[in-house]
Amino acid sequence: MELLEKTLAAIAPVDQEMMKQARERVDFLLKPVGSLGVLEDIAVSVAGITGQMHPDLSKKAVLVFAGDHGVFVEGVAAAPQEVTALMANMCVAGKSGVAALSKQAGADVFVCDVGMICDIDPKGGILDKKIRKGTANMRVEAAMTRDEAIAALEAGIDMANRAIGNGYQILGTGEVGICNTTPSAAIFSVLGDVDAGELTGAGANLSEEKMLVKAQVIRDAIALNKPDKNDGIDVLAKVGGLEIGAMAGTMLAGAAKKVPVVVDGFISTAAAAIAITLKPEVKDYLICSHASAEKGAAFGSEFIGAKPFLNMGMRLGEGSGAALAFNIVDAALSMNKEMATYGEVGLGVV
Amino acid sequence: MELLEKTLAAIAPVDQEMMKQARERVDFLLKPVGSLGVLEDIAVSVAGITGQMHPDLSKKAVLVFAGDHGVFVEGVAAAPQEVTALMANMCVAGKSGVAALSKQAGADVFVCDVGMICDIDPKGGILDKKIRKGTANMRVEAAMTRDEAIAALEAGIDMANRAIGNGYQILGTGEVGICNTTPSAAIFSVLGDVDAGELTGAGANLSEEKMLVKAQVIRDAIALNKPDKNDGIDVLAKVGGLEIGAMAGTMLAGAAKKVPVVVDGFISTAAAAIAITLKPEVKDYLICSHASAEKGAAFGSEFIGAKPFLNMGMRLGEGSGAALAFNIVDAALSMNKEMATYGEVGLGVV
Repeated sequence: MELLEKTLAAIAPVDQEMMKQARERVDFLLKPVGSLGVLEDIAVSVAGITGQMHPDLSKKAVLVFAGDHGVFVEGVAAAPQEVTALMANMCVAGKSGVAALSKQAGADVFVCDVGMICDIDPKGGILDKKIRKGTANMRVEAAMTRDEAIAALEAGIDMANRAIGNGYQILGTGEVGICNTTPSAAIFSVLGDVDAGELTGAGANLSEEKMLVKAQVIRDAIALNKPDKNDGIDVLAKVGGLEIGAMAGTMLAGAAKKVPVVVDGFISTAAAAIAITLKPEVKDYLICSHASAEKGAAFGSEFIGAKPFLNMGMRLGEGSGAALAFNIVDAALSMNKEMATYGEVGLGVV
Repeated sequence: MELLEKTLAAIAPVDQEMMKQARERVDFLLKPVGSLGVLEDIAVSVAGITGQMHPDLSKKAVLVFAGDHGVFVEGVAAAPQEVTALMANMCVAGKSGVAALSKQAGADVFVCDVGMICDIDPKGGILDKKIRKGTANMRVEAAMTRDEAIAALEAGIDMANRAIGNGYQILGTGEVGICNTTPSAAIFSVLGDVDAGELTGAGANLSEEKMLVKAQVIRDAIALNKPDKNDGIDVLAKVGGLEIGAMAGTMLAGAAKKVPVVVDGFISTAAAAIAITLKPEVKDYLICSHASAEKGAAFGSEFIGAKPFLNMGMRLGEGSGAALAFNIVDAALSMNKEMATYGEVGLGVV
């Protein structure tokens, strides 16, 4: 609890004065005002986050958290549960989607077990911060205890703090966890006061029939556990997931250290919603990159007030959208740094 | 005419067999089928274009064509006409938007004058393929002669052929040309049989009042010149632009040499529409990247059957969206090359 409290206390609003300066500069770059759209907004945003006009964000990492879910037994996933560990290992081996996209983007991938059901090989490259072997089945009890939820948040904080300590300047959050669209939908159902049916999508290619089951499982879990929507830790504990907590923790740590965190897709956004519930100022430290094709994603983005700018029909998870978006952030920095201003060429703004 | 005819004759359909193989491979990559969305489609598309499963597209160039427009005198632009040459020089100097974004994407920028009103310094770095000093005012006569339109197309073909000869493996098309959203809207108005008012946007921050003028100018130009919508050269000559012709030529040359050409935004898409009118097979050699914020862009993309995947609110032109999209193409290639297949890890497809 101490690490969480310390982290929450360290989160200050982004640097408004630097954002104003960055907006002025961006408006004076040699182009019609506003004509580089989202790139302009990202340049202003990272200036506010870092307090620097031209931050160096070249050292990049995606932190991938792995966890399993007791609610799997309700038949809410298309893939077998062993795939969580398989994919965690594939991330380490450089063979997963996020690994391939991170390689292209010049980012490193770190994989951390916070709650897989299997034992992991300590020499296998997956960092061990296991809190418990999978959550409980939220349809019959709380997914985890309050202390475990705090431990999940703190695992993410610790991983992010270590990465930042090692010089990483921008982070992405990723996850592997078979059936974790179910707790993600549950989180938004609680926080957004909306029926689970509105949020329940195909995940990893679930059938129509199973989608109906999935929505009912979420309704049952919420009715049983009665999470308090004003208490992010309570929501995380009762209907969330261990890896979702760790992702939220990463976002909190990024905000506390003024390091931008790229959020993609549905599960990341659910984690962001938890982080924002704990500390609203976190929102401005997040770069919400990717509009997932998962059904609840549009609701999730709107709920946290994000306008994702990549529209690629992706719904893989793992942090794949974050890795891809690192390129766009780099482009925004290059725009702000390399372009001339109207002043430099002796012209007025068009 | 000979170069154009030779190029058109050399354009064959993309390699369907290689696309089938690529789709099979992509479907067997370690992810739910379809879950990397547009990245999967791009990987399949470039396999079909190049005839290779894992093409090397690391040597990249944006070809920026510069031209002025006689219709400027009708008051259809927010910026002074001198900005065309200024921006052409800024592209060479690395200080424009496309230059900044190309630097980030690892692409080279080549600038070619096909029709600026000013004389250019032969030592200034802008390649000289000037056909005439600006088009004529299409509201009172054809923008150019048929021979000049063919020369514009051939200038683009020659530039692309030279770039490809020098080892460039993927091209983007860009332009500078104050008021060239006007001929672009005119092209779609003719080819798509739609009133200019539906296509006329703010360009570089034009006022509401001037937008009405712009639409009427386009209507008048079409009524006067009566371009034949089935003859792309006729449309280009009567209501098009020199740089638009050169961009279309670049697309034709790319298709003839099996080199992907990235198309972005409104003016590129108008050029693509001309190229496709001349040879429908060209369409499959284009990677349509970016949904421009310019009003007619959505119509234009739909007209050529493209689904742009970058949704960044950009409307700068210059090829800025193409430069940005090079990153996404690289990501698609990395996905196809670096990810393991289900077969390699001994699993069935999820």
